[in-house]
Amino acid sequence: MFRYKKKGIIVMQTKFIQVGVGPLGRQIVLRALERRDLRIAGAVDIAPELHGKDVGEICGVDAVGVPISASLEEAVHDSEAEVLVLATVSSIAALETQIRAAAPFGLSIVSTCEELSYPWRAHLEEARRIDELCRKHRIACLGTGVNPGYLMDYLPSVLTTLCNRVTKVEVERVQDAAHRRIPFQQKIGAGLTLEEFEVRKQSGTLRHVGLLESVAMLAAALGWELERMEETLNPVVATERESSGYQVIESGRARGVEQVGSGWVAGREVIRLAFRAAVGEPGSHDTVTITGTPSFRSSIDGGVNGDIATAAVTLNAAKVIGALNPGLRTMLDLPVAGSWGWG
Amino acid sequence: MFRYKKKGIIVMQTKFIQVGVGPLGRQIVLRALERRDLRIAGAVDIAPELHGKDVGEICGVDAVGVPISASLEEAVHDSEAEVLVLATVSSIAALETQIRAAAPFGLSIVSTCEELSYPWRAHLEEARRIDELCRKHRIACLGTGVNPGYLMDYLPSVLTTLCNRVTKVEVERVQDAAHRRIPFQQKIGAGLTLEEFEVRKQSGTLRHVGLLESVAMLAAALGWELERMEETLNPVVATERESSGYQVIESGRARGVEQVGSGWVAGREVIRLAFRAAVGEPGSHDTVTITGTPSFRSSIDGGVNGDIATAAVTLNAAKVIGALNPGLRTMLDLPVAGSWGWG
Repeated sequence: MFRYKKKGIIVMQTKFIQVGVGPLGRQIVLRALERRDLRIAGAVDIAPELHGKDVGEICGVDAVGVPISASLEEAVHDSEAEVLVLATVSSIAALETQIRAAAPFGLSIVSTCEELSYPWRAHLEEARRIDELCRKHRIACLGTGVNPGYLMDYLPSVLTTLCNRVTKVEVERVQDAAHRRIPFQQKIGAGLTLEEFEVRKQSGTLRHVGLLESVAMLAAALGWELERMEETLNPVVATERESSGYQVIESGRARGVEQVGSGWVAGREVIRLAFRAAVGEPGSHDTVTITGTPSFRSSIDGGVNGDIATAAVTLNAAKVIGALNPGLRTMLDLPVAGSWGWG
Repeated sequence: MFRYKKKGIIVMQTKFIQVGVGPLGRQIVLRALERRDLRIAGAVDIAPELHGKDVGEICGVDAVGVPISASLEEAVHDSEAEVLVLATVSSIAALETQIRAAAPFGLSIVSTCEELSYPWRAHLEEARRIDELCRKHRIACLGTGVNPGYLMDYLPSVLTTLCNRVTKVEVERVQDAAHRRIPFQQKIGAGLTLEEFEVRKQSGTLRHVGLLESVAMLAAALGWELERMEETLNPVVATERESSGYQVIESGRARGVEQVGSGWVAGREVIRLAFRAAVGEPGSHDTVTITGTPSFRSSIDGGVNGDIATAAVTLNAAKVIGALNPGLRTMLDLPVAGSWGWG
């Protein structure tokens, strides 16, 4: 823990090592450079062309005096870092290998791996092995991000705390993709014919990873033993010519994707998470509707920018992960992370 | 930890002892009786007329086989309870005496005491002594409720986790008191002349206790060292005859109260919490507005029923307080409590 002075007051600063300097890793580094409560103390990537380059310069800003290393050992050495931030893979199988290599260094791990956000149902064997490994090396490990990790699982779980009992939780995340990055518009299938959409759907590349992890986390917060979970994925079809995105979409083509995940108890749908991202979709919002005692709806009109928020949630979690007991943890275990108050 | 079977699955049940069977204590008992994840295992009150009576019957429902005791020792004996729920006083000075008597029994404590929700600024000495006492007896102690404890401090803190940095947090809790209990309408000064309101204000009986505790908790979540906090309290004045409450309020009299708490850093207002409860106040809502990266607003239209939610938050916290390290804790330390999923 490095300390610096802010108006005469000693402030704690968490040092971290960034593992993975791809698009998301760069976003995390840039966001960390905006804050004084976090300090990048090392960086690692597998791409040979990045080795030895300054991580600030690779992210398009001034040099920060931190070269990108080929090896974690080199990055950790003398860094005094407490946390590794892993922005590498979405699959827990691939991540397990990385955690196995990283755990012996004894630093806590925050990962953006979607399948790690709540692996205790769909990936029980991997979760148990990672948990055991982390306990052995006395480190805490957490998967997080804006979604999964916050908007459709952690936040709704927090909101249910207002209720004495809950019979159903519905979450809707609706985003107009028109002003998002081109790769995001491509990722959701905007502009594809319905046949092309179906091919991409079958190949699994359209899918938002982590929706059923969110269902499982929410069920855990409510003590529900789900009898089954379901997931559907369909195109949002343009009914007229749509020109608000990076390319014109003709009527009859896909504007984007709608994915619904649900959880069932005793033949009743108790959790329903709907994620819809489409070019020209009106009324972006993030809404949680809870039926219970009391019933209420909580909404963020305009929704939350996913690119900034994934970096922010990851960095905020990195600040407090040191408070967790060793093992594989989830956002349900985390104390309130808060943020960095500027000024 | 008592376990029962739910559809063949073993479910954990937390046993608690209710200390204080006044209006709020009764609400907590009634709410606990609606759930299967909590079980009342004892009850204590100082009122002699309650001693030996069944706590269920005193709350207006069927007997539950739990007599109200005069002494904590009697209630704890053989109860196998893990948690004490204290719904007794608002003042931390009075509560400290109760905690001193209760701590040796070794049960975790969840209290609805407003000043305990975040005592690390306004009541530092009491907080340190309670913290030391709880560490000595290896128990965790937490002050919570809907407000303070959730809506104007914990929830906004959780919401800031979406942000990379935050420059200001504003929270507005607006309630139409017309349909609330008569004692609530009286508590907020509805129907008083402005002179009567001023007398009640000076005597301190109109004040919502805990607003500056909320400011201090939020500041802690953001790492702000506040240079000062301010609190104002003013009547909401009827501009026409108001007949929606339990009594008619003539124009020019108070319909209710508006209380504003704020926190300042470097001459800038960074936290502003406004609580307005008045008979005939339109558009009840609980809204959090965050200025930062990103900026957004989260709102619960219609607001949250405070009577149910205080009992619910207290009971939900009682379920998870066992996960906390010994000492005086706050909602910022708590893992996600969630609720009880019915079905």
